[in-house]
Amino acid sequence: MLTRTPERTLTDQLAERFAERIRARLLPAGARLPSVRECARQQGVSPHTVVAAYDKLLAQGLVHAQRQRGFFVRDLGQKTPSAVENKAHPAINSGIAAGSLQGAMGAAGSRINATALIRGMFHQPSAHPQPGAGVLPMAWLQEARFLPAAVRRVAASGALDQGSFSYGEPMGDAGLRAALARRLAQLQIAAAPEQIITTMGATQALDIVSRALLKAGDPVLVEEPGWSVEFARLEALGMRVLPVPRGPDGPDLAVMARLCELHAPRLFVSVSVLHNPTGYSLSPASAHRILQLAQQHDFFIAEDDTYGHIAPEHATRLSALDGLQRTIYVSGFAKILAPNWRIGYLAAPAQLVERLLDTKLLSTLTTPSLLEKALALCIEQGQLRRHGERIRQRLAQARARSVQLALGADCRFAAEPAGMFGWVDTGVDTDVLAQRMLDAGYLIAPGSLFHATREPRTLMRINFGTAQDAHFWKALRAFR
Amino acid sequence: MLTRTPERTLTDQLAERFAERIRARLLPAGARLPSVRECARQQGVSPHTVVAAYDKLLAQGLVHAQRQRGFFVRDLGQKTPSAVENKAHPAINSGIAAGSLQGAMGAAGSRINATALIRGMFHQPSAHPQPGAGVLPMAWLQEARFLPAAVRRVAASGALDQGSFSYGEPMGDAGLRAALARRLAQLQIAAAPEQIITTMGATQALDIVSRALLKAGDPVLVEEPGWSVEFARLEALGMRVLPVPRGPDGPDLAVMARLCELHAPRLFVSVSVLHNPTGYSLSPASAHRILQLAQQHDFFIAEDDTYGHIAPEHATRLSALDGLQRTIYVSGFAKILAPNWRIGYLAAPAQLVERLLDTKLLSTLTTPSLLEKALALCIEQGQLRRHGERIRQRLAQARARSVQLALGADCRFAAEPAGMFGWVDTGVDTDVLAQRMLDAGYLIAPGSLFHATREPRTLMRINFGTAQDAHFWKALRAFR
Repeated sequence: MLTRTPERTLTDQLAERFAERIRARLLPAGARLPSVRECARQQGVSPHTVVAAYDKLLAQGLVHAQRQRGFFVRDLGQKTPSAVENKAHPAINSGIAAGSLQGAMGAAGSRINATALIRGMFHQPSAHPQPGAGVLPMAWLQEARFLPAAVRRVAASGALDQGSFSYGEPMGDAGLRAALARRLAQLQIAAAPEQIITTMGATQALDIVSRALLKAGDPVLVEEPGWSVEFARLEALGMRVLPVPRGPDGPDLAVMARLCELHAPRLFVSVSVLHNPTGYSLSPASAHRILQLAQQHDFFIAEDDTYGHIAPEHATRLSALDGLQRTIYVSGFAKILAPNWRIGYLAAPAQLVERLLDTKLLSTLTTPSLLEKALALCIEQGQLRRHGERIRQRLAQARARSVQLALGADCRFAAEPAGMFGWVDTGVDTDVLAQRMLDAGYLIAPGSLFHATREPRTLMRINFGTAQDAHFWKALRAFR
Repeated sequence: MLTRTPERTLTDQLAERFAERIRARLLPAGARLPSVRECARQQGVSPHTVVAAYDKLLAQGLVHAQRQRGFFVRDLGQKTPSAVENKAHPAINSGIAAGSLQGAMGAAGSRINATALIRGMFHQPSAHPQPGAGVLPMAWLQEARFLPAAVRRVAASGALDQGSFSYGEPMGDAGLRAALARRLAQLQIAAAPEQIITTMGATQALDIVSRALLKAGDPVLVEEPGWSVEFARLEALGMRVLPVPRGPDGPDLAVMARLCELHAPRLFVSVSVLHNPTGYSLSPASAHRILQLAQQHDFFIAEDDTYGHIAPEHATRLSALDGLQRTIYVSGFAKILAPNWRIGYLAAPAQLVERLLDTKLLSTLTTPSLLEKALALCIEQGQLRRHGERIRQRLAQARARSVQLALGADCRFAAEPAGMFGWVDTGVDTDVLAQRMLDAGYLIAPGSLFHATREPRTLMRINFGTAQDAHFWKALRAFR
């Protein structure tokens, strides 16, 4: 895979490959580089080349050497100037998280892994499609050819002029909120436009909910496996993260009830429909029981419906049963439209709207109306609905093919394949597999990224939209 | 001012006027409505009309009555459904702030006032220009006719397609960051594009800095008077806010040194140039001394240069002296370009970039590249620079005229007029004045909004861009 060129020596190429992974946190702080002998064998170069490459990394301050033990990735956060090093900030050195790291989460581990996953979303180790990615292939999204036209239409109208030169509406564009209220009505969720606040993606909506409803030290129920960026954010805010095992019908209700009694949590964060990473969807009976627990133990529920656009409309949603009394519905458009537009929203109980809005104002003031108006146009003209249908069909085909390929590579599905992600049992430690697949140019999402307890797992998440590359499955089989 | 129409009775109009102010938090929770007699006199209606209007507010749940004492604004946050009321969430009932409210800040008071100020920025009580506003007149900003053209150009190019359909660059658009690095070089601040992260306005930049560098309970130095939204955000994150008096040359260094010894603060947040609300700019000697304190007591400085575009380039900035070792430079474009675009940025010491970026990712993932690319175009083509010059000239003229009007209304300037805001001594309690001026259709920013200790003050902040209305000054004089 490394080829000597007139411009770059093998040493330079090898050093740069490791440097890139270290910077992208794909090789986390503390990780040991392969032994010189092993690396030479893996890369098909001489041990001398490896030693020279490791020396370069040492000189760049990216790794440190331990006598008799090998080379280890440095914590880049510790590269502080001497003045600051004299009396280091504990808050700084604890990582992403300024808050205290408590509960079941391993401190350093969770931070590194969550960061690696986020960085991975922006990292393209090769030209191959990336089965570990969190978004559908760009070519699928680019089928939304109506999008640039909608932007041009808003830009040509007086709306850009009117909307840009003041801070704009704190709640978000009124036209978009009205369109979202109609969409929610189709999902049987009764929400007036006055209960809807637009946000910078579902990410900011979840951030606002946790900041507005919780204070540092509060216990929060999350699903395990689950979305580790959510874990990392709650940790960074200093919350106590309480994982509840997620099954096909919903969270494990016995564990949940016990945690409620022991810890009196204030919030439960749930991806009820097409759960990430399993693809599970909540059953009506589980939904009813969760709402009873919420009533009995007096907590709120943030229902993250990020995958709602690729799910059937009739799927059970907590917000629909509850009538937005204790639930805050959260969704966005990154999975089917324009991830970079960062348009998300929340729909909340009327009595929470003011304080959620205050939190939005304190965090970003308003959100850009130009993009919100363009999105509203796409919804009103039915373009988004038709685009959603095409994406769902395409995904169904891709899923069928990916499942065949996975089974053909002797993998097993730990959950019935559904939606965007597959939860695949490879039979081998996927943390090790992830590093090896990277060498072949593939990013995978190992199971440990979705668990609060970080022991090595044999599971991995695949994106059905980007897992149809036969070479990927062949490489995976070979590495196992 | 109230006029009976066939459609709406005087009672309805009066009730609606109060209801609107209560919802916009311009009449905060706990505030007493004027007595029936006084209100009747102020509004030129019969006492019967006032009683009927107050009854309507009572029925709407916006006020409550106390026997012999009158009508008081209800805390809207307490209008929770019975299920939630059974065991109220302390985090909910403590206001904006999920965090603990500590230090010198009054809990309820600060929340209400900060929120009122933010809401006021979006509130237009009448068609008059609003001297309490935080932005320049929309007509001035709309002179930037190059802005819609830049959007159309980006939308017509492949950049929209390329930029929208993936999450985009975590650090922000590379072209914009390169342009910002050149702008910072003009301010003598050496920052590589790799040290610059784009954000949703300066607001998110300040939010990211406090979240990444602090944990709940940490002490933070702020300037008093100062920007109360910053106070409110720090409180909401659970920080201990330590106000330092701000003088013409900078913060009171003796007080600052003493607070450093007593509390070992982790961060100092400062608007060094054209400070809000006073218009003061930091002296070189103060800047040097602050950096010495930061070194000695090991804290970071967030330098908020929101008003940088309307300040002289040669103004003293901490980040320039420090070379971005302990300082994080923060700025944005809301004051001269398109407030709703929410484009801000931070430039940070290299060793902090990774964790600041992680915090951005956890809070909004990325930021929209379409608007960033359009802004980069405006900067590269010199349009922003020329627009900035025109704004500065216009502001200088408006300032001269506003100062004359203020002096003519027997006001005194508590600080030498400079920049966008005037810090005006009216000689009367500006909290009372604010309510009266609202009746005349004017929003003012009373001094108590800029103070951590909320006692009534005779000061108010005026926006020189929106304070040239002779009627305003006449009304103000009459009310005094």
